[in-house]
Amino acid sequence: MLKHFQVPDDIAVRVDVERLRSVTEQVFMHCGVPESEARLGADVLIFADESGIDTHGVSNMLRSYVSGYNAKTMNPDPQLKIVKETPSTATVDGDGGLGLMIAPKAMEIAISKAREVGTGVVAVRNSGHLGAAGYHAMMAAEQDMIGWCMTAGGKAMIPTFGAEAQLGTNPIAFAAPGNNEPVFLFDAAMTSIAGNKIGLANRLGKEMSPGWVANADGTPDMEGGSMVDFVANTTRAQLPLGSTRELGSHKGYSLGVMVDILCGQLSFAPGFNSLARTRRAHFVAAYSVDAFGDVDEFKENMDGMLKGLAATKPMPGHDRVYYAGLPEHETRIERRETGVPLHPEVVEWFRGICAEFEITFDLA
Amino acid sequence: MLKHFQVPDDIAVRVDVERLRSVTEQVFMHCGVPESEARLGADVLIFADESGIDTHGVSNMLRSYVSGYNAKTMNPDPQLKIVKETPSTATVDGDGGLGLMIAPKAMEIAISKAREVGTGVVAVRNSGHLGAAGYHAMMAAEQDMIGWCMTAGGKAMIPTFGAEAQLGTNPIAFAAPGNNEPVFLFDAAMTSIAGNKIGLANRLGKEMSPGWVANADGTPDMEGGSMVDFVANTTRAQLPLGSTRELGSHKGYSLGVMVDILCGQLSFAPGFNSLARTRRAHFVAAYSVDAFGDVDEFKENMDGMLKGLAATKPMPGHDRVYYAGLPEHETRIERRETGVPLHPEVVEWFRGICAEFEITFDLA
Repeated sequence: MLKHFQVPDDIAVRVDVERLRSVTEQVFMHCGVPESEARLGADVLIFADESGIDTHGVSNMLRSYVSGYNAKTMNPDPQLKIVKETPSTATVDGDGGLGLMIAPKAMEIAISKAREVGTGVVAVRNSGHLGAAGYHAMMAAEQDMIGWCMTAGGKAMIPTFGAEAQLGTNPIAFAAPGNNEPVFLFDAAMTSIAGNKIGLANRLGKEMSPGWVANADGTPDMEGGSMVDFVANTTRAQLPLGSTRELGSHKGYSLGVMVDILCGQLSFAPGFNSLARTRRAHFVAAYSVDAFGDVDEFKENMDGMLKGLAATKPMPGHDRVYYAGLPEHETRIERRETGVPLHPEVVEWFRGICAEFEITFDLA
Repeated sequence: MLKHFQVPDDIAVRVDVERLRSVTEQVFMHCGVPESEARLGADVLIFADESGIDTHGVSNMLRSYVSGYNAKTMNPDPQLKIVKETPSTATVDGDGGLGLMIAPKAMEIAISKAREVGTGVVAVRNSGHLGAAGYHAMMAAEQDMIGWCMTAGGKAMIPTFGAEAQLGTNPIAFAAPGNNEPVFLFDAAMTSIAGNKIGLANRLGKEMSPGWVANADGTPDMEGGSMVDFVANTTRAQLPLGSTRELGSHKGYSLGVMVDILCGQLSFAPGFNSLARTRRAHFVAAYSVDAFGDVDEFKENMDGMLKGLAATKPMPGHDRVYYAGLPEHETRIERRETGVPLHPEVVEWFRGICAEFEITFDLA
């Protein structure tokens, strides 16, 4: 991830991954989430934290989940229901639960169908925040499958030439396994920047870059400006990937619509027909590599491709070229050793919530 | 499409769609393509021409196909082979044919599987140029299915932070049907601009915009520059959608890798393991809406969404907001009436090839 969004080393508190996991599980359980679900939800969050996806880890997200459970807008013990299914598809109702725990179950259904008939495609309605979409896509890669995960909901992205937000940030995650090389794992919003990055940058006191948001009248802000201004003025919607029509914003916008269709329309989610989405909808898919050819050959071929991309001659000012999933893999190795760098404000929040919930606080 | 790439009205020769179709079919047949295949290939090209996708119509592409057949690098009468299949998947060898005619057959396989088990996913290797990917995705939408089509091959796109091209422009097409509203039909390269647009702009004497290509050392060219300079200097690779890391080029780059995996790796296409791709590979998929829920309800919901997007309040300087497929739909209605505007140079090429192939020239 960009250094822009990292907690500066001189103030970061390094917290052991397993301690962070344990506290997170207990927070979920205190909110009424059953133990196995709490473990799963914490695993999704900690995956983001240890991968350096700080926008989707405990620091940015856990407090909003706690608020949702407290306000009873989120169901802590949802009963997932398959509304319709065929040999390769399922339409699932998430019963108002948190996407963190709903999506892995949807992906399990997809993987099981892919094992039977080659592919499994599952659309999910009536769900909550997904966490890092990459976690769910990765589940398929671990089973020698290609994995997709997308999520839609809310209004953040402004259509090209538009003056008002109409779509969510609508991320796409995609995973494909190699043999010895780290999994290719892409996970990104179809806006030029993830929505959560704005909150994170705000906490870090960083300014926005040009091309991230629209001005109040909808025109792309190619000058940049302070976070405070953005947060105060909700009419400043986020720009699609591509930022301006000339740079290709119609592509980011259309990919956003595609995600809305696959998640919201394909799951028949309430409100998606009128752009007035109440809850979130997801899409997961698994394609079994074995259905297309020899798995070992595929993974060897993937290694060749991934090594080739990483060996690309770099441009001036850079010493390496990456592929998606490679920096996160390296960060996981590092953070499992040295801990997750949390902002002191986040540690204080944990201290407070642990006191309130009567959980042992041992993070710092 | 951007006015930038349209033949100026004062020099354009308006050619009747059906005459253009007939001449194109005859050109294919003269190259050894069987009649039914020639008809299909012409249909794919004419769809682009009448939709205003001039980059992928007869003007830009037909001459390169004729060269391929003449040089015997392309097989005019390929025998498509299913190498492996499961209830929902197939791996197809295109026998060195032109993607224009291979992809519709792959899509027919996908549609037929989707009808049986809910989804159909087909990876194709050993194929040629695809034409407009949207044509193939649209086939699924016409059967009340969601359609995907992607294609990979060649080297045009430079990875983020890289100094050399490693991927094709790797377009994604996606179609989903409404009821009364025109189909949502997205079709775009994962570079900031389609490769073919460079040739087209060159013929029109237009300069490149900032953010489209890299400088010779790999750094993003955010100044813009002449087409001639780009064409002369092949080290100036195309930038991924997003153009710079700050604007999100890692997303365009990673979506490009995703397309390479789905097309090249999933079909076990030669050369894709070493980034030395010889032929093209494709990916098509069809998801039956009926497998997920009620088709009429889905199409009504889609109409609501599409109407809502088109009704978005526009930003200053614009009087409308579009969704992908809407302007092309309107252009089709217009061009079926008034003809396809061809550059005089293209008309002259047709005059020449008709004389050489002893085909009646009746375009102007």
